[in-house]
Amino acid sequence: MKVAIIGAGMMGSALAFPARENGNEVSLIGTPLDKEIIDCCKKTNQHPKFNIAFPNGINYYYFEDMLTAIENADFIIGGVSSFGVDWFLSEVLAKINPSLPVISVTKGLITLDDGQLLSYPEYWEKELEKLGINRQICAIGGPCTSYELVCHDKTEVAFCGKNVDTLKMMKKALETPYYFISLTKDVVGLETAVALKNGYALGIALTIGLREQENPDDTELHYNSQAGAFYQAVKEMNYILDMQSASENCKWIGIGDLYVTVYGGRTRKIGILLGRGIPYDKALEMLNGVTLESLVITRRLVKALKIKAQKGLINLCDYPMITHVGEVLDGKKDVQLPWNSFTFENI
Amino acid sequence: MKVAIIGAGMMGSALAFPARENGNEVSLIGTPLDKEIIDCCKKTNQHPKFNIAFPNGINYYYFEDMLTAIENADFIIGGVSSFGVDWFLSEVLAKINPSLPVISVTKGLITLDDGQLLSYPEYWEKELEKLGINRQICAIGGPCTSYELVCHDKTEVAFCGKNVDTLKMMKKALETPYYFISLTKDVVGLETAVALKNGYALGIALTIGLREQENPDDTELHYNSQAGAFYQAVKEMNYILDMQSASENCKWIGIGDLYVTVYGGRTRKIGILLGRGIPYDKALEMLNGVTLESLVITRRLVKALKIKAQKGLINLCDYPMITHVGEVLDGKKDVQLPWNSFTFENI
Repeated sequence: MKVAIIGAGMMGSALAFPARENGNEVSLIGTPLDKEIIDCCKKTNQHPKFNIAFPNGINYYYFEDMLTAIENADFIIGGVSSFGVDWFLSEVLAKINPSLPVISVTKGLITLDDGQLLSYPEYWEKELEKLGINRQICAIGGPCTSYELVCHDKTEVAFCGKNVDTLKMMKKALETPYYFISLTKDVVGLETAVALKNGYALGIALTIGLREQENPDDTELHYNSQAGAFYQAVKEMNYILDMQSASENCKWIGIGDLYVTVYGGRTRKIGILLGRGIPYDKALEMLNGVTLESLVITRRLVKALKIKAQKGLINLCDYPMITHVGEVLDGKKDVQLPWNSFTFENI
Repeated sequence: MKVAIIGAGMMGSALAFPARENGNEVSLIGTPLDKEIIDCCKKTNQHPKFNIAFPNGINYYYFEDMLTAIENADFIIGGVSSFGVDWFLSEVLAKINPSLPVISVTKGLITLDDGQLLSYPEYWEKELEKLGINRQICAIGGPCTSYELVCHDKTEVAFCGKNVDTLKMMKKALETPYYFISLTKDVVGLETAVALKNGYALGIALTIGLREQENPDDTELHYNSQAGAFYQAVKEMNYILDMQSASENCKWIGIGDLYVTVYGGRTRKIGILLGRGIPYDKALEMLNGVTLESLVITRRLVKALKIKAQKGLINLCDYPMITHVGEVLDGKKDVQLPWNSFTFENI
């Protein structure tokens, strides 16, 4: 098969490993922001942020050559960050053959004015419909960090979409002895679960920094408070996923994804900095240059929950953790997780 | 209030911290196996396995003095390990005033011949009934490792029992600004959840050793495979908890407990050793002297599942992870997690 990946960030590029190692023809196409990455790949056969080389035989393209690069492709993998969602809509989805299958790794949700949380596949499909284009978009979710995928660490993910044959074709192309793929028609459930986890991983990471702030002489990592926050995160995620009518399997994938995200780089870093009491602007400055999808999803999620609460659909008291994270990001509160409100009385 | 703790292992002793810091009168009573620990506590006011001293004012007792030590106690905390369950039954529960409330921190399950999984409170109550003693036993579950509780790391647990007033009295005695207590009547659900987590944490820890075995030059911790195993653990735990009619809150507490147990010492250590390919007997030898409740619960759980499968009540294929862990413990298989069987197709 021929697989074309659009977006040469870490996750898009990491997927070139199973795609190519499985014997497919692979094109890795940078966005206009990825020019230097593609330069580097062409010169060294290695992504500047990975410490191992790509498998041999991948073709690298600048975005100007996209139409050439995707010619005869069996499907497209969309690998842009959530900040590229509208660009991907207008510059890729609206311009390529509507019958060419697309699967996206972009994680996130959009909050509508009525409080509804929309997954990116739904958003893109609705926007394309306005242009008269009828297209279904598949997506990838699950516990997978890019730098561990390229190390061949065993990885469990799920592909979601409405067309079974398309999903099976994509699974066949990408499954390898280290990349294990579940399939589900529950696009909303999977995409909500794996977007939520960014906001909640941030909340869990706060406990690490907070502990450091409260006990500066104690440099050990502590897990009781992380686990207490993990329990509350799972609880709140479950409430939100029930609102989205998510399937149980997608909830469990989301919990696995929460686990890996607590350890996986950027979200952990900003969470620890905020937990230490460093103000939001200063923390952002310290992490200069990294994309922080967790901040966006937290704000959107809190906005959606507030609208739903105003409409009487939910009780905001059931979401003390994400509400607190939202207040910390807005500079309205110092980090002080509301532990007492995480308890329950079922008596 | 007066709180008497029987069992001076790490968890029983750790509970003396919130109990005493909350202003209660506290007696810490060693079992006959705890003589040296009580010696040490009397001499140094510190438990030999903790690196900080007890709060002042705790009274330490040898087991011979139990009846004196528990006089006028408002309730007893049972802090024996799962290997002391029958001892606790005959030497404590059968001998003390049946109206004196008891809450236990012992984690585990007993497998009956019909495959039923019995919690320790249920087991004790049934056995006491045979002796003509009518007693209800409460229990503590949730993500709490002893050495982090004594460090005052923020901790979320749940107390379960049938009598609301008793639970509230115990909560009042023990809740502190670092020990947060939920209450539930779902004894079976909570106790099953927090017992299961030991077997599943072992399965997750296998991935860490396995990765080391497969890539000896790569000394970094990897999280994709841990997270993939975590997702599967949550899935299988959920199936078992549904069989036990567990409440959702107890499931979530169990997931938090799974998280802390992956990091919390003994279970992690044996899992990593087995994952490296070290045979069971040798691995046990290397961990000489530590109590390994995770091995017991795994075997009991696998036994129960096999009986249930033989009776046609469940499909063993739904439990590939714990089945594999059981086979590894029995020396029947090398560690090789069945990743492919962790995938699902909901299409």
